[in-house]
Amino acid sequence: MARAHWGCCPWLVLLCACAWGHPKAVDLGQDDVRNCSSSPPYLPVTAVDTTERLAALRQQLQNQNLSAYIIPDTDTHMNEYIGTQDERRAWISGFTGSAGTAVVTMEKAAVWTDSRYWIQAERQMDCNWELHKEVGTTPIVTWLLTEIPTGERIGFDPFLLSIDTWKSYDEGLQDSERQLVSIPTNLVDLAWGSDRPLVPSEPIYALQEAFTGSTWQEKVSDIRSQMQAHENAPTAILLSALEETAWLFNLRSSDIPYNPFFYSYALLTNSSIRLFANKSRFSSETLEYLNSDCIGPMCVQLEDYSQIRDSVQAYASEDVKIWIGTSYTTYALYEVIPKEKLIEDTYSPVMITKAVKNSKEQALLKASHVRDAVAMIRYLVWLEKNVPKGTVDEYSGAEFVNKLRGEEEYSAGPSFETISASGLNAALAHYSPTEEVHRQLSSDEIYLLDSGGQYWDGTTDITRTVHWGTPTAFQKEAYTRVLMGNIDLSTLIFPADTSGRVVEAFARKALWDVGLNYGHGTGHGIGNFLCVHEWPVGFQSNNIAMAKGMFTSIEPGYYQDGEFGIRIEDVALVVEANTKYPGSYLTFEVVSLVPYDRNLIDVSLLSPEQLQYLNSYYQTIREKVGPELQRRNLLDEFTWLQEHTEPLSARAPGTTSLASVLAASTLSILGWSV
Amino acid sequence: MARAHWGCCPWLVLLCACAWGHPKAVDLGQDDVRNCSSSPPYLPVTAVDTTERLAALRQQLQNQNLSAYIIPDTDTHMNEYIGTQDERRAWISGFTGSAGTAVVTMEKAAVWTDSRYWIQAERQMDCNWELHKEVGTTPIVTWLLTEIPTGERIGFDPFLLSIDTWKSYDEGLQDSERQLVSIPTNLVDLAWGSDRPLVPSEPIYALQEAFTGSTWQEKVSDIRSQMQAHENAPTAILLSALEETAWLFNLRSSDIPYNPFFYSYALLTNSSIRLFANKSRFSSETLEYLNSDCIGPMCVQLEDYSQIRDSVQAYASEDVKIWIGTSYTTYALYEVIPKEKLIEDTYSPVMITKAVKNSKEQALLKASHVRDAVAMIRYLVWLEKNVPKGTVDEYSGAEFVNKLRGEEEYSAGPSFETISASGLNAALAHYSPTEEVHRQLSSDEIYLLDSGGQYWDGTTDITRTVHWGTPTAFQKEAYTRVLMGNIDLSTLIFPADTSGRVVEAFARKALWDVGLNYGHGTGHGIGNFLCVHEWPVGFQSNNIAMAKGMFTSIEPGYYQDGEFGIRIEDVALVVEANTKYPGSYLTFEVVSLVPYDRNLIDVSLLSPEQLQYLNSYYQTIREKVGPELQRRNLLDEFTWLQEHTEPLSARAPGTTSLASVLAASTLSILGWSV
Repeated sequence: MARAHWGCCPWLVLLCACAWGHPKAVDLGQDDVRNCSSSPPYLPVTAVDTTERLAALRQQLQNQNLSAYIIPDTDTHMNEYIGTQDERRAWISGFTGSAGTAVVTMEKAAVWTDSRYWIQAERQMDCNWELHKEVGTTPIVTWLLTEIPTGERIGFDPFLLSIDTWKSYDEGLQDSERQLVSIPTNLVDLAWGSDRPLVPSEPIYALQEAFTGSTWQEKVSDIRSQMQAHENAPTAILLSALEETAWLFNLRSSDIPYNPFFYSYALLTNSSIRLFANKSRFSSETLEYLNSDCIGPMCVQLEDYSQIRDSVQAYASEDVKIWIGTSYTTYALYEVIPKEKLIEDTYSPVMITKAVKNSKEQALLKASHVRDAVAMIRYLVWLEKNVPKGTVDEYSGAEFVNKLRGEEEYSAGPSFETISASGLNAALAHYSPTEEVHRQLSSDEIYLLDSGGQYWDGTTDITRTVHWGTPTAFQKEAYTRVLMGNIDLSTLIFPADTSGRVVEAFARKALWDVGLNYGHGTGHGIGNFLCVHEWPVGFQSNNIAMAKGMFTSIEPGYYQDGEFGIRIEDVALVVEANTKYPGSYLTFEVVSLVPYDRNLIDVSLLSPEQLQYLNSYYQTIREKVGPELQRRNLLDEFTWLQEHTEPLSARAPGTTSLASVLAASTLSILGWSV
Repeated sequence: MARAHWGCCPWLVLLCACAWGHPKAVDLGQDDVRNCSSSPPYLPVTAVDTTERLAALRQQLQNQNLSAYIIPDTDTHMNEYIGTQDERRAWISGFTGSAGTAVVTMEKAAVWTDSRYWIQAERQMDCNWELHKEVGTTPIVTWLLTEIPTGERIGFDPFLLSIDTWKSYDEGLQDSERQLVSIPTNLVDLAWGSDRPLVPSEPIYALQEAFTGSTWQEKVSDIRSQMQAHENAPTAILLSALEETAWLFNLRSSDIPYNPFFYSYALLTNSSIRLFANKSRFSSETLEYLNSDCIGPMCVQLEDYSQIRDSVQAYASEDVKIWIGTSYTTYALYEVIPKEKLIEDTYSPVMITKAVKNSKEQALLKASHVRDAVAMIRYLVWLEKNVPKGTVDEYSGAEFVNKLRGEEEYSAGPSFETISASGLNAALAHYSPTEEVHRQLSSDEIYLLDSGGQYWDGTTDITRTVHWGTPTAFQKEAYTRVLMGNIDLSTLIFPADTSGRVVEAFARKALWDVGLNYGHGTGHGIGNFLCVHEWPVGFQSNNIAMAKGMFTSIEPGYYQDGEFGIRIEDVALVVEANTKYPGSYLTFEVVSLVPYDRNLIDVSLLSPEQLQYLNSYYQTIREKVGPELQRRNLLDEFTWLQEHTEPLSARAPGTTSLASVLAASTLSILGWSV
């Protein structure tokens, strides 16, 4: 599933990539929207009364002498998924969409969001709220300049703005005689009060050694050597992304939906390691594991999570240089470090190092994909039996595949909200069904399942699209061309250090050839029991260059509005390519191991090379997944696997490898030279 | 030939595109370099004594109370090619390479340039000069901070710095307590004195109506309508690029080598047109053509070229908004316009409009390519006859092809310095021979010719690589894969508004497949009797999206250091693609019409589609160039064309279209279904 990274979401929108968000289920009664111009105004039952909430927030604005307050959709760590206690914009506005910014003044309240959410916003917001159908900070700044008189103050929570977002507000308001005021205490939380959900505080635990690529000590040493090698001689690295601390210390918990993270920061120097997290969440074993009872370069000093800003400010007052990754650092920490003491990169060295998996991490991720394939195959077999009976719907299907993954060894739940979409719902790309709102699966419709699991050894993400009846010729052509794109990119050989964006079009060419395309990104990195969307790996303009050891999804698709949707997603490892002439070249090794739907493949469209690859991929699936099915005595599934991985052969009129050989041999036999 | 645009060159270097410069001929005695550490220092005969020149310049620094002076390699209009009177860095340092910046302090003198020029600089500079093997402003700023004490002044000529370059110097020196001082009078010119070549002042003439796509009045009206449609309501457009004024007014001259431009600026408002150029260069007919004797929205007021800065400053003092393209505007004009009165785009609307050719401009450019093909074919026939005699060398060949182009109708000279390279010299990519230094052509070596012509109706640029003897298997494979890349990109179907950088890799895939690649860009726009490298069209990151009516070169290559070089370059028109399913899709129509060297093509490597395209392209050449050759009674050339455009057919082994058909039919006859 392609990622929408909220931190840079407005920009990704331009790349048609942010169009992959996680809109809540599309409600059948979606025409039932508010009408604030009628008298009395009409509000659907889904609308939330925000009058009291706004009054409480405006009281806080008054206390702070503010004329406006900005409420973004982010949390303190720029997480893709945020906890319920961080859904401040949703609480104040009623609008629960995952992307959108709110601004509240003493007189007005407004939300800015993109087209995915316009209807949802009109159904969830009451008439206290304006809806602005725009994205990015520019329209918000323009609005503020008209609403807020000169000399007045506009407040924001510096923990919720990335450095770039703050800069765009700051530049927009420069020389405007309005003051942009950083207020480290969140005013929505004060208004929310006791109703606000509690911050999670489940135990923070260490991964078993079997599931880690290196010890935290080895990782710390590696990062320190990168500090020492750096021309600007950083004295410390400040880590703000939760995946950074989780990876560095091999620690996990469950603070974030779908991501096994815990709220934390880390400040790593050459002589000390400071981990900012709630100490009560660590068992004595884990504290021992972290050497937290000693002082020294390999002892982890635990400090309270709430102390991060003061501690960074205090550290920055010394003669130091602090290395940060600007993508995940919030303005709250940026503003307490003097500019001349900052070393700014887009991503911290931990992010960059984590992106390249060592051989053990590669083996772990591959192993998790074998078990994930078993769960997927069990689900596909189950669907084949039950869909014709009409007893399966999108929601029960999603529940069942999640259950099957849950039964796999080392399972730790789904890696994102399962996308289980039938017929026209599949065209909505990231539609997810709910218990109330879902569609029945049918042999007459295409069904798309985009799902993944968290396992102690790896994170998975796979999309398969199936049809149990008779697909139309167009559906078969579209599916086959999506498959051809997937194969063409998966088999591409390219120079080391090539950026994904430079080769992404190979996944589209087969569709472009006939005037088809898709409107989302083509892939994203993935972690070892970390993010299902692990940046900065992928095929977008702001991803880093491909390197041996990276994992990325490859996921072209095609969507026919109101009719059907197709996506074929695999996870692939970047490996060295053996080229005829020596050189540093890379290619992909697909590690997802689930057959594609034969019923939707028009073999005559495949080139000999594509057909050859497909059959070798099927052979790999047999070799890697077959024994696991037998070991577990899943005989129906084993039989199904054999049937669905039977070598495909071309039929005339398509060019086929066999045909070519025949042709060649025929010709040579006849002594022809055409 | 791929372009190095000096304005953004340091950045292009990162894209491996700036590597296309125009280094002067590599001297055979290139190991004969200076040695300043020996005593006495050793200087080759090619070194220039700059002691007096530096003394004269330092006198000017003293007069201006400067501690350092920056001397870039640009001219006042960010031209790719600059006049001899603008070669200030070459004069002061002795180093004549086309890329490189000099800085002179009271004690030291230094040049920064890229690897193409290191040897040349060591041969041309005396020991007054340090050579820094770095590019970009950052290392220069770092050096200045060590050399120049705080409180002192660093001077530069604002007419020679692009806005971006100035910004990078300014940011680098911010808060450093060194003052960056803009001095509109160039100090090198003052030191150069009477030896400095005169600024060209040939007549400025109007193109015949037959050679223009629209009248200047139509163009002015179009640009004005874009001003009126602009949300920020510009009152004027300031044009700084010479190609902008040449295009807008359909005027030409010969101030710049290879480019038919004249030094000028234009300030276009809704009610007036002000052209800044030397009035004495216009004939009375041209003045009449420009309606220069009236006052009104369609009258061109001529003002002296030297007045531009004062006039812009005066205009900017009113209540106005001035729309500029930052890529071609220098800091000299930028600094006299208050920020709030600026509307900044990377390229002016004239640049963007010029990039899309209307149907008449397309027809004109195509017609020039037919005549250019005649000249090229005459040259290739001549080579075939004379190379075996051993009577042709790189220089005499270049002279002869230039002569042949000169004999074509509407010829106005070459469009760039002809690249005529044999054997290992072809691996130098943009090597150009000189009368003194050149290599003999031989039937045993690959020969690469990258050349083009200026014609009143169009500008051409084509590269053909040939071998008259027996190429090695590797040479044939490399050539064929370069050709495959050329074909794969030329035949690509892609969505409208796709950026070139997204599809550029299709020109590389056939090489990547076996571990080969090339280190330069894949193409650039081209004009109608304008720039041979017409931005912003092309395949690089800073090019604009492809649109119907644009022309671009497509020029993959392969270079084997010390052995041979291959490049196959055609010019192609962006046209609408007819796709199976309706949609807005584009593809290319190749307008260069010269056959590729059959002797270097390994047909067995070509896919059926590539072979089919190649033969249809050859058919097009026959239809378009054949009649022209007959009309002019060039019978040898006509015979040669027929021979070299004979349809190619595949031989086993190798999938062939015929073979496939055969296979298919065979199978169907036999009733098989493989």
